[in-house]
Amino acid sequence: MNNFEFQNPTKIIFGKGSIAKLSENLYKGEKIMMTYGGGSIKKNGVYDQVKKALEGFNVIEFGGIEANPDYDTLMKAVKICREEGVGFLLAVGGGSVIDGTKFIAAAVDYKGDEWEILTKKQVPEECLPLATVLTMPATGSEMNSNAVISRRAIKEKLDFGSDKVFPVFSILDPEVVYSIPKRQKANGLADSYIHVIEQYLTDDIDTPVQDRWAEGVLKTIIETAPKVLVENPDYNACANYMWSATCALNFFISPGVNQDWSTHMIGHELTAIYGLDHGVTLSIVLPGTMQVLRNDKKAKLLMYAKNVFNITEGSEDERIDKAISETEKFFQSLGIKTRLKDYNIGQEVAENICNRFTSRGVNCLGEHGIVTIDKIKEILISRL
Amino acid sequence: MNNFEFQNPTKIIFGKGSIAKLSENLYKGEKIMMTYGGGSIKKNGVYDQVKKALEGFNVIEFGGIEANPDYDTLMKAVKICREEGVGFLLAVGGGSVIDGTKFIAAAVDYKGDEWEILTKKQVPEECLPLATVLTMPATGSEMNSNAVISRRAIKEKLDFGSDKVFPVFSILDPEVVYSIPKRQKANGLADSYIHVIEQYLTDDIDTPVQDRWAEGVLKTIIETAPKVLVENPDYNACANYMWSATCALNFFISPGVNQDWSTHMIGHELTAIYGLDHGVTLSIVLPGTMQVLRNDKKAKLLMYAKNVFNITEGSEDERIDKAISETEKFFQSLGIKTRLKDYNIGQEVAENICNRFTSRGVNCLGEHGIVTIDKIKEILISRL
Repeated sequence: MNNFEFQNPTKIIFGKGSIAKLSENLYKGEKIMMTYGGGSIKKNGVYDQVKKALEGFNVIEFGGIEANPDYDTLMKAVKICREEGVGFLLAVGGGSVIDGTKFIAAAVDYKGDEWEILTKKQVPEECLPLATVLTMPATGSEMNSNAVISRRAIKEKLDFGSDKVFPVFSILDPEVVYSIPKRQKANGLADSYIHVIEQYLTDDIDTPVQDRWAEGVLKTIIETAPKVLVENPDYNACANYMWSATCALNFFISPGVNQDWSTHMIGHELTAIYGLDHGVTLSIVLPGTMQVLRNDKKAKLLMYAKNVFNITEGSEDERIDKAISETEKFFQSLGIKTRLKDYNIGQEVAENICNRFTSRGVNCLGEHGIVTIDKIKEILISRL
Repeated sequence: MNNFEFQNPTKIIFGKGSIAKLSENLYKGEKIMMTYGGGSIKKNGVYDQVKKALEGFNVIEFGGIEANPDYDTLMKAVKICREEGVGFLLAVGGGSVIDGTKFIAAAVDYKGDEWEILTKKQVPEECLPLATVLTMPATGSEMNSNAVISRRAIKEKLDFGSDKVFPVFSILDPEVVYSIPKRQKANGLADSYIHVIEQYLTDDIDTPVQDRWAEGVLKTIIETAPKVLVENPDYNACANYMWSATCALNFFISPGVNQDWSTHMIGHELTAIYGLDHGVTLSIVLPGTMQVLRNDKKAKLLMYAKNVFNITEGSEDERIDKAISETEKFFQSLGIKTRLKDYNIGQEVAENICNRFTSRGVNCLGEHGIVTIDKIKEILISRL
């Protein structure tokens, strides 16, 4: 096991009816900016529940944060926060709204060009405190310190992380899942699954608690997916999906292990260039990462085959083949197409994405830097 | 899944050499009381490492906190804290030292009879902040908000819990395990195992992430135990034992599930009356709890049999019998004797302990109060 430091201070308020607990958890006396997305919260009742809980608080609203939240949109919110003296941010939405709100929290007091928060990973000493009401389980952003921000004007998608942007608290009411469209639930399930994979499918350095926990989340997602994707999912299915998505990226499974994240990095490029859904890009790339890195990741691929899919028969290569194919089948079972050609993307993608990495000075990804530029090319070509 | 609130703010600093990081994590300018136990830290080098890291800090020492920390001992420390204006507590030890230090933290500013913290579960608004350097993995106290305190003068052993006594940070260096005597390692492994059982072996309310995580810790403890009990355990075995013990009771496996804790409550009585080691009392009681509550806990016992011991053959009753017997064998493999008669305790114990519960107004224990006084009697009689 590697040495590690771990701390996750976010308070989780989970369950039916928990949005009503908003008021008792909010700071009094601060001006609050409530952020949200395209307005789906106005259709599904969440907006009304939040507004009711916020009665008597000093609240301004900032709606319109898009999927893959855009830097230029967020900078408008930053300007308003500065002008209005906002002291607390309340993100009501999914990963995009929450990630965008983390950026706002970091940017308000940033001295200099705010884009540096993403390019230079510089976060100011003081960030605005934020909390969330989660409306879409997927990114785990409600209980972690990461954010991914897009800048469409220059076709970039970059991330940053800082202990200072952990939500103070997050409200997770599984009943919000009832009204999520199937395509978004599919993306959320795929995204959560691959978050776990990035922290698990590396090298085996004798970390059984972390490994069993990662497998536990993966198995739960596989088991829960068909129950969640139906039109009227039951409460427990929604609750298990929601808690899996949070546990997939709240750092509980990652202390002391090596991490990969190359699938995410490559996926971000596909979103930046072609506008594909995040969960879709990951489902396309991951089988390629597994295939191309199968020797480096052999011990963990065999562990994954056995403990997640109960694959115990056949040679090592056969078991790994089967595990990769089961993984791809799982994404397909969600209704996600897993080949680049399904999205009319041709082989030029490989060169294009590799150039983008090298132009930023990135020469390798993954645990121990094993995903070199050549491997990235190979991964993408394998997914045509 | 039940509704829940979860927050665990403790920072963990884990790994080889991490005691040296003490100074960069401590509050400057406060008078620190360093608490410890019977002096084993002076033999194994931990005392020297801590003192070196504390150079330049304003530190007073309070040693002599015994196993099953005693109220009267702790009140001496409380008096010194008040007289000296101590502003921060640093517990260097195992669960007893840490639990005792949590009590000191709560008692210093308590107005009234400090015993009420335990009898009335009253904790003052302000507790002293505390941190820990863990020397013995077992109780999970380094990353939770609970403490168990004994009062030998009146043969009582009671617990309290409060968000205000989470350690600010805890340093977990697995190398401290090298010098722990075998009997203590055995107790720590049994204790950790049964912490998980108390949060897992209840009723099945469809909580797959929590259940897989509990099983993951149980399987790790079973696998790691023989590697830890040898005279010169390797680093990874010590690290996995240490992280298992923390994860067994840092509340990561318990959000939204029902909990039992009757084995602990009965075990505490055995310690209070007969002075048996905590881990020993649990190993005696648990097979009885499983046996007597086998119908109420049937779904979870079958899940436990399958997922922890891979028991899939036979009738339901046969599988449950096998799981109970495997559990008892595991404790015996640690070198722990699991019958009351092994400790010269006769059947009078049952009446005696039940009277102690009823005299305190306790008429039942366990999830949904299913462990009635009659069941407690039955459990103890079954363990003669």
